[in-house]
Amino acid sequence: MIINITRITKTVFFLTVFLSVNVFAELKGTGDLGIVIERAAGQVKLINTSKRVAIGSVEGLGDLSHASTVFSRDARYAYIFGRDGGLTKIDLLTSTISKRIIQAGNSIGGAISQDGKLVAASNYEPGGVKIFDSETLSLIADIPAEYGDSQYSKVVGLVDAPGRKFVFSLYDAGEIWIVDMNDTNKPLIKKFKGIGKQPYDGLITPDGRYYVAGLYGEDGLAVLDLWNVDQGVKKVLTDYGRGIEKLPVYKMPHLEGWAQAGKYLFIPAIGEHAVIIIDPDRWLEVARIKTYGQPVFAIARPDGRQVWVNFSFPDNDHLQIIDVAKMDIIKELVPGKAVLHMEFTPRGEEVWVSVRDEDRVDIYNTDTFDRLAQIPADKPSGIFFTHRAHKIGL
Amino acid sequence: MIINITRITKTVFFLTVFLSVNVFAELKGTGDLGIVIERAAGQVKLINTSKRVAIGSVEGLGDLSHASTVFSRDARYAYIFGRDGGLTKIDLLTSTISKRIIQAGNSIGGAISQDGKLVAASNYEPGGVKIFDSETLSLIADIPAEYGDSQYSKVVGLVDAPGRKFVFSLYDAGEIWIVDMNDTNKPLIKKFKGIGKQPYDGLITPDGRYYVAGLYGEDGLAVLDLWNVDQGVKKVLTDYGRGIEKLPVYKMPHLEGWAQAGKYLFIPAIGEHAVIIIDPDRWLEVARIKTYGQPVFAIARPDGRQVWVNFSFPDNDHLQIIDVAKMDIIKELVPGKAVLHMEFTPRGEEVWVSVRDEDRVDIYNTDTFDRLAQIPADKPSGIFFTHRAHKIGL
Repeated sequence: MIINITRITKTVFFLTVFLSVNVFAELKGTGDLGIVIERAAGQVKLINTSKRVAIGSVEGLGDLSHASTVFSRDARYAYIFGRDGGLTKIDLLTSTISKRIIQAGNSIGGAISQDGKLVAASNYEPGGVKIFDSETLSLIADIPAEYGDSQYSKVVGLVDAPGRKFVFSLYDAGEIWIVDMNDTNKPLIKKFKGIGKQPYDGLITPDGRYYVAGLYGEDGLAVLDLWNVDQGVKKVLTDYGRGIEKLPVYKMPHLEGWAQAGKYLFIPAIGEHAVIIIDPDRWLEVARIKTYGQPVFAIARPDGRQVWVNFSFPDNDHLQIIDVAKMDIIKELVPGKAVLHMEFTPRGEEVWVSVRDEDRVDIYNTDTFDRLAQIPADKPSGIFFTHRAHKIGL
Repeated sequence: MIINITRITKTVFFLTVFLSVNVFAELKGTGDLGIVIERAAGQVKLINTSKRVAIGSVEGLGDLSHASTVFSRDARYAYIFGRDGGLTKIDLLTSTISKRIIQAGNSIGGAISQDGKLVAASNYEPGGVKIFDSETLSLIADIPAEYGDSQYSKVVGLVDAPGRKFVFSLYDAGEIWIVDMNDTNKPLIKKFKGIGKQPYDGLITPDGRYYVAGLYGEDGLAVLDLWNVDQGVKKVLTDYGRGIEKLPVYKMPHLEGWAQAGKYLFIPAIGEHAVIIIDPDRWLEVARIKTYGQPVFAIARPDGRQVWVNFSFPDNDHLQIIDVAKMDIIKELVPGKAVLHMEFTPRGEEVWVSVRDEDRVDIYNTDTFDRLAQIPADKPSGIFFTHRAHKIGL
């Protein structure tokens, strides 16, 4: 009898352990999950976009200023790149840290390979790119951004590209590099030199064809056609003008936010109250839309019918919405102080907006512009949803 | 003591039940899952595209000829539309049927609304569309395809569109209808009459802007610009030719397979050994590529750099791959007898191909064209991956 009870007790114990794991880790799909960066607290909030709720949070992520995120191929894990060189793999199903490493001294962003097997981080200090196994975060390749006389450049604008490649820009060197990771033991690096002064960020078009670096040290953009790399990097829009009104730049626009809507690219003009519309067939400016402030992000609704624009200080309480067919602003919203980021639901019916200084995330219907919900968040900045796992360049 | 044991026993019992559910339902992400239709057996195989393996199967799904699938917003559930009017909701995490109804006598396809809350089925018999709650499969709206003198038309080419809409074609009536489901109690129906003879299938462009119906009763396509519905339906490519070589049509091409790659649409020519390339800005044919047989599906790799084409009997052992930049066929594969369908992994590095008469699914690297794996399957037809949950029109 005593033995029996002991057995039963043991069974109960083990079952309880198993159960508790499973209670915290409810069985659920991961297609409608996401994270909100809570920068000041060094934590992230996990959210569900179907229910419009927070479902958990994970802390202890270090310095999350300028933090960005990519997702695993199964949409279960988020990889968070912190400014302090921290790379953290978070399990969205259990709200726990699966793995955390400090991979550099100062880092600016990351990417995940087309097949989801490799995670890459771009670093300021030491300047270069490190590539990790997405499962274990063990180091696969270390690519110092060496140039000139044994100098090392800050690396910016890191993106994944089709064919298990990564592409990035060397800020100090004025170079664009492609790394082919098909053989993980032998990364093949192709370098494009003299592409322009101070590439400060880069993007890849949604089809993975064009890599575009914005230049800070001179006017224009550097464009690399990945379908025709032998043609080299082309400088375009050399008169696109950082300087028409010569305003001080409070915040550099983000290029990853550049929107392709229909056949055009919508880009924030640096130091100007305008969004520039570019035809990527000819790399010419086709129109320029005046905006409320200096744009930071110009992001297309997934169907490409609208482009949403936020602004740098002191105009960062506003949002403007461009109708792509009309090529005009059709709506203005004032969510509150410090609108830092926007993320659309996968098919674009709603958009989540971080309003940092109001400690809120606001959710809008993109058709009616009605505010549908508000979620409290601690100084929210970037918002990232899991469907990014399946997009090139996000 | 006795009371205690009873309590413990009860606890063990409930824990065991909970445990058993959770053992069969391993905690996992759902972003890399999918299903393969095993038509003859009336079942589906569940698969994992990261591991390239089958992870389960679900039987008892009725007549799965011409079956298609959409996915829930959380990527956990597949909705399978059977030819016999069966609509089955499958849980990919537990490999079980969550719900199954027979909603019509003869059905041809389905769609899920932009917000994932509504599932719609298009029916031949009785002709019309039924719309269900995606959670419970309870009927939300019944829309008979009534036309003329109280006749009912077969419904084809049903797709979701932005703004919680569905769009479809009435084969017998020659009409296109838009249903606005913003108020689920009051579906708003907009009808376009006289759009052409016998629209046999339809598609919506990936941006959700153009609805295109293929016409069987006459040459040409019917195009509706959903950004400008007041302009009505336009007939285009009226000379595109069902009939240049006047071949017998063994299998109608699928329009949902029509590819948008870059700025062009690639469409299978009916009754001709050719893929037609259309510029949707002007709705003109820009080129025509000769193919090995009569194309059934022409599907773009997600980056738009390739279009893969399969063929109707007797050429259905072949695949041809079009290079979009070169506008030419660059590769031919012969997987085996009865190549019925292809599905690309979300970012396009691999493609899964069903080879029905060989009882296999083959997986190819889309860069090297190497065959990476084979998965046994019972007369496989359609292959569908969960990332479709986040795409307009899929």
